[in-house]
Amino acid sequence: MPSQFEPPSGTRDFLAAAVEQRERAFDIIRSVCTRYGFEPLQTPAFERLDVLLGKYGDEADKLVFKILRRGEHEASGEADLALRYDMTVPLARVAAAYGSQLPTPYKRYAMGPVWRADRPGKDRYREFVQFDLDTLGSSSLLADAEALCAQHDALAALGLSQFAIQLNSRRVLAGLLAAFGVPAPIGPAVLTSLDKLDKLAPGDVVAELTGRGLSAAQAGDLVTALTAPDSADQVRIALTKTDEGNAGMDEVDTVLSLVSGQIPDERIAFTPRMVRGLSYYTGPIWEVITPGVASAIGSGGRYDHLIAQLGGPDVPATGSSIGVERILQLLPDASAAEASRLDVAVTVMGADLAVRSFAFAAAARAVGLRASVYLGSSGKLSRQLKWASDSGARWCLIYGEQEHKAGSVTVRDMVSGDQSSVPADELGGYLARLAGTKAG
Amino acid sequence: MPSQFEPPSGTRDFLAAAVEQRERAFDIIRSVCTRYGFEPLQTPAFERLDVLLGKYGDEADKLVFKILRRGEHEASGEADLALRYDMTVPLARVAAAYGSQLPTPYKRYAMGPVWRADRPGKDRYREFVQFDLDTLGSSSLLADAEALCAQHDALAALGLSQFAIQLNSRRVLAGLLAAFGVPAPIGPAVLTSLDKLDKLAPGDVVAELTGRGLSAAQAGDLVTALTAPDSADQVRIALTKTDEGNAGMDEVDTVLSLVSGQIPDERIAFTPRMVRGLSYYTGPIWEVITPGVASAIGSGGRYDHLIAQLGGPDVPATGSSIGVERILQLLPDASAAEASRLDVAVTVMGADLAVRSFAFAAAARAVGLRASVYLGSSGKLSRQLKWASDSGARWCLIYGEQEHKAGSVTVRDMVSGDQSSVPADELGGYLARLAGTKAG
Repeated sequence: MPSQFEPPSGTRDFLAAAVEQRERAFDIIRSVCTRYGFEPLQTPAFERLDVLLGKYGDEADKLVFKILRRGEHEASGEADLALRYDMTVPLARVAAAYGSQLPTPYKRYAMGPVWRADRPGKDRYREFVQFDLDTLGSSSLLADAEALCAQHDALAALGLSQFAIQLNSRRVLAGLLAAFGVPAPIGPAVLTSLDKLDKLAPGDVVAELTGRGLSAAQAGDLVTALTAPDSADQVRIALTKTDEGNAGMDEVDTVLSLVSGQIPDERIAFTPRMVRGLSYYTGPIWEVITPGVASAIGSGGRYDHLIAQLGGPDVPATGSSIGVERILQLLPDASAAEASRLDVAVTVMGADLAVRSFAFAAAARAVGLRASVYLGSSGKLSRQLKWASDSGARWCLIYGEQEHKAGSVTVRDMVSGDQSSVPADELGGYLARLAGTKAG
Repeated sequence: MPSQFEPPSGTRDFLAAAVEQRERAFDIIRSVCTRYGFEPLQTPAFERLDVLLGKYGDEADKLVFKILRRGEHEASGEADLALRYDMTVPLARVAAAYGSQLPTPYKRYAMGPVWRADRPGKDRYREFVQFDLDTLGSSSLLADAEALCAQHDALAALGLSQFAIQLNSRRVLAGLLAAFGVPAPIGPAVLTSLDKLDKLAPGDVVAELTGRGLSAAQAGDLVTALTAPDSADQVRIALTKTDEGNAGMDEVDTVLSLVSGQIPDERIAFTPRMVRGLSYYTGPIWEVITPGVASAIGSGGRYDHLIAQLGGPDVPATGSSIGVERILQLLPDASAAEASRLDVAVTVMGADLAVRSFAFAAAARAVGLRASVYLGSSGKLSRQLKWASDSGARWCLIYGEQEHKAGSVTVRDMVSGDQSSVPADELGGYLARLAGTKAG
C-alpha cells in the first residue's frame, strides 16, 4: 500500500470481514453485560483538556492526543480538548454530572475506542477499543464478585477456554508486608518489585528488594513464600498474624465462595504474588491470563477512592476490563475470517430486462436474503456468473430473453451448478424454501 | 448540571435509554445495508491532516478539529492529524489503499461519529453520527436505484412513514438551463438561486436571477416552470428541446421505473426544482423530506469524479446518506425511551445467605433473564424491595432465613404483588416458564 494511503500510524482500517468479526465479539460482550444488569454509557470521543490531564501522572499525560483550539485561537497553538485516554475519567465526570439521575448503585459498561499516542508496534495501537464494566456506589463484595463473573462469562462466551483468573486483595498484600516486617514507607516500592516475579528470576527480585532496604533474610523469605508451589497456603498461614492480613484473606475467601458455581474452580485461584501495578486499588484485585500471551487479557479490582481523585463523587467502586483487541487476535476465526457475502446474485441481461432483475433482487430481500443485481457493464452471462461466484452468492438468478418470454427465472445453485426454472411470480416463496432447506 | 461536568460544547453523553434507542436504530440501518449486499467499513477517527484538508474548500477546513503534534513537536503548536469530517474522504483513501482487495463494484456503508467544529445549537452537534452507503465502480443506474431503495427501506424500517423522495438529475438541470437559454458561464449561479425556491418567494428568486444576468422574461419563465403545479410536466416538455435534456429525463425515468414496486409511487416524484447544493453531483440526485423538518432527512446522488478529486482512484460512484441524528429525534420512542431494566432482582438478606442469592441471580441469567443481586448495605426487606421496584424488575427473589430453612425461594411478582414459594433447585425452570408465559 503506498504510504500516503495508509491510515495514520497506529490506527487501522477495518474492511468487511474484520468489522463483522469485531462486532460479533462486541455484541457478545454487550449481551453478557446486559444479563448482569450493567447498562451502557457512551461519552464523547473528546473531553475538555482540564478534565483529562493530570489524572494518571505525567507519563500518561504525554500519551494524550490534544486538539488544537479553533478559529482565531488556532494560531495560539494551544489545545483545549483531548481524545479520551480511558473510560474511567469520563465515568467520573458522568457520575458527577448526572448523580441523582443515575441508578444506585450505578452499574455501567462502556465499550469504544480510546486513543493513546504510544509508540505503535506489533499489536499495539494508538486507537483501540476498550471495554470496562464498573459498579459505582456499592461497598459490597457481591459487586466485586459480579464484576468478576461478568468478565468471566464474557470471556467464555467469546470462545476462550484456556484462561485463568489470579485473585488477590490489596489488603492481603498489606497484611503480607506487615507479616514479613516490611516497614510501611517502603511498602509500595516492595510491591513494585514483587510485581516483577512473573518476569524476573526470584534471585533478581531478592536483589532488588534488598536494594530497597529489606534485609537479605526478609527479602528471601518473602520471595520464597510467594514463589513456592504451596505459596497460597504459606501466605494464608503468614497472614493470620495480622488483622489486616485476616481481613484481606476473608475478602479473598468471600469472593471465592461467591463465584464458586459460576466460575469453574480450576479457572480461579488465590494468587498472593499478583500485585497489579496500579496503586489506586483498595480491595480485591484480579488478572486474567492465558497461555502464550505475556500480559493479562483482563483485569479488575476495587478502587474505592479513584472516582473522587478523578474529579467525581467519592463513591466506592469496583470493576473489570477486558483487553478486547488482544482477545480478538486469539479468537479462532481471527485470521480466517471472511466477510459474509451475498445469498442471491441477480444477472442483468440488457437494459430492457433490468427492471425485472431489480425486482427479483427485492423479492429475495423480502424473504430475508442478501441480494444484489449485477452492476457492471458486461452483457455476457459468463462474466456475470463470475461476478456471482466472486460475490460468494449461494444462488444466481438468470433472467434473459428466454426466461422473459417464458415468464420464468432460472435459479442456479452456485455450488452444484444445477439450474431450475421457476415461475417469476413464485420466486420469493421458492427462494424462501431453498434458504430454509439450506438453513435446516 | 455544574458546567465543569458537562461534556464538551456540542457533544453529548448518552445514558442507557439513549444508547439503547440509538443502537436499535443503527442495527436496523445496518441490517438493511446487509440485505442489499453493502458491506461495512470502519476507518480511524482521525486522518492525517493533508488527507483531510483542502477537500471541500476553506469553509469546511475551518470546521475540522485538528490534533496537535506530540512529544517534542507539541510546542510547535502545529497539527498533523485531524478528526474525520465526513465518511467520503476516508472512503476515497480506502479505495486508493486497498484497490484490488476490494470487491468490484465496492458497495460499502459506514456509520459512525464525525466531528465538525460548527457553532453548536439546537439539534446541531459537533460530534454526530453519520450514515453513508455508496457504490464505487459502477456507472449503471441500477446502482443509483439500489442506493435509493436501500435508503428508502432503511427509513421505512426505522418506522418513518411520512416522507417523500424528490428525484432529479444534474443532467435534467443542465438540459433545463439550455432549454431556457441560460448562458453556460452563469449556469452554476442560476442553479444556486433556483435552489432557494423552497425558502424564498418566487418573485425574490426571479429578482436574484435577473441580478445574475438573466432577462426578466427568462427568469420569470424558468421560475414559473419550476413552481407551477404541473411543473414536472412543463419541464418534461421543455427538456425535449435538447439532447442533454432528453438524456437527463431518460435517467430520471429509468430510475423511477427501477424503483417502482420497491418504493410506493406516492413517496417519490420527479422534482425538477430540487437542485442539491453540492456541485460534485453528476447524474441522478435526490433528497428525502418529511413534514415539519426544514432540511432534508436524507439525500443522495451520483458523483462520478469526486472520489478522484478527494485523492482516490477515478471511479464512478453513487450513494445516499441518512441524517441519523435528525431521524432519531423523529422516532416515536425518542422522548419516552426508558432503559431496559432488570427482569429479576435478588435480595441479599445477610452475608451468610449471599452466596445462595448470588447463585440465584446466575440461575436467572442462565435462562436468559437480566438479573442482579442487591448490592446495597441495607438488610431490610422493604428497602431491598424498593430497589427491586426502582430497577424495574418484573420479579423479585426473596431469600431469607425462612426460605433458607425450607430450601426454597420466594418469587414475588412485582406487578401483582403475588408471591410463590419455589424449591431452590427448581428456580431456573420456574423462571424460564414464567418468562415464557410473560413473553407469550
